[in-house]
Amino acid sequence: MSQDQEIYRRIADAGIVLRAPAKPAAAYVPFVETGKLLFLSGHIARREGLVWEGQLGRDMETATGTQAARAIAQDLLGTLHAATGNLAKIRRIVKVLCLVNSTSAFTEHHLVANGCSELLEEIFGDAGKHARSAFGVAQLPTGTCVEVELVAELF
Amino acid sequence: MSQDQEIYRRIADAGIVLRAPAKPAAAYVPFVETGKLLFLSGHIARREGLVWEGQLGRDMETATGTQAARAIAQDLLGTLHAATGNLAKIRRIVKVLCLVNSTSAFTEHHLVANGCSELLEEIFGDAGKHARSAFGVAQLPTGTCVEVELVAELF
Amino acid sequence: MSQDQEIYRRIADAGIVLRAPAKPAAAYVPFVETGKLLFLSGHIARREGLVWEGQLGRDMETATGTQAARAIAQDLLGTLHAATGNLAKIRRIVKVLCLVNSTSAFTEHHLVANGCSELLEEIFGDAGKHARSAFGVAQLPTGTCVEVELVAELF
Repeated sequence: MSQDQEIYRRIADAGIVLRAPAKPAAAYVPFVETGKLLFLSGHIARREGLVWEGQLGRDMETATGTQAARAIAQDLLGTLHAATGNLAKIRRIVKVLCLVNSTSAFTEHHLVANGCSELLEEIFGDAGKHARSAFGVAQLPTGTCVEVELVAELF
Repeated sequence: MSQDQEIYRRIADAGIVLRAPAKPAAAYVPFVETGKLLFLSGHIARREGLVWEGQLGRDMETATGTQAARAIAQDLLGTLHAATGNLAKIRRIVKVLCLVNSTSAFTEHHLVANGCSELLEEIFGDAGKHARSAFGVAQLPTGTCVEVELVAELF
Repeated sequence: MSQDQEIYRRIADAGIVLRAPAKPAAAYVPFVETGKLLFLSGHIARREGLVWEGQLGRDMETATGTQAARAIAQDLLGTLHAATGNLAKIRRIVKVLCLVNSTSAFTEHHLVANGCSELLEEIFGDAGKHARSAFGVAQLPTGTCVEVELVAELF
């Protein structure tokens, strides 16, 4: 099985259906390619097509936030596929910035972010390992619980 | 009219006077060029030369925040001009990070960020379209209402 | 004295012992190299091996936050050394993102961030000058007071 097929098989095995990036609700684009780098816009958490609202430390548990971050990773994969036409063109995931909608009392942003990071590694293997920052923000657009932006390197 | 002149004509038409970047108030520089990428420091909102203070959801309306983001875009243009000597050397705007000083109740950060994004597109056309993240922060340096950092690609 | 020796002498003069990057507590890696850029993950503040907890504006003074940011810069130097094998391979520090755990009342994030920025300039000289954004976040992983991520350019 080729490397290409391997990536898409893992995606299917994880039960993920790749979706084209949502049309941005504002004046920006889902991704920009520059040199060998691909910059993805912040993707917000969605559930069943709707904004996944919530704030960690107020009305959402860590485990649910982790699921939301995993859902975002699925959307990021959809955008990466749309940007490249073939995920095998991605050399590696470089950087993830994970913004967690949280109260001042919540301190498990890293565990929430793992929902995204672990899926990326599950799909891309070692090429999915990335540098990362995660932190708590006062609030996110439309009240979503998590937002993730990503930088990838192309072959 | 050349492409160079076109950009500067649009800036004049928008009533924008390009200003040299403010001397940073701290231990950093306004921009760094590396390879074909230009990284701009976070620019805070100013009005009539003073810090534009405010917090969305507390003492500032969305529309005012959007104006502040547009004012920042004007300063970003000034810095891009200072960095390149000629805005036509910019191949495209790659990425914008828009930090909105907001309460936990405010959820229109994307509308605030549009004030910056739309001016960039107005000036650069398709080359002004960029990837973006916007979110609410607990507070910003000197109490400013919005801060924007930017990555551009050079020809 | 060679440029290499000069950097390490300055580090010794500053009383800094370079440490290997801490094993990430979650699903990411301390740094990723792509082209000539080196992306470092967000590094949290530590003191005597433990998480340096605190929130500016609540239970920590600006000067202490500045010390915490300086401590992070020491850890960033350790990671840069681990990533390159020789700090003289670093052409310059490109960009710093400084996240300050702060209340909505605190507005001196730039002074906190200076603790990191000034040490980088002290060690690397002009090559240590960087673009930067600093802002207040609602909370940070494990309750640390400051987190810093960094982009460097390699020769």
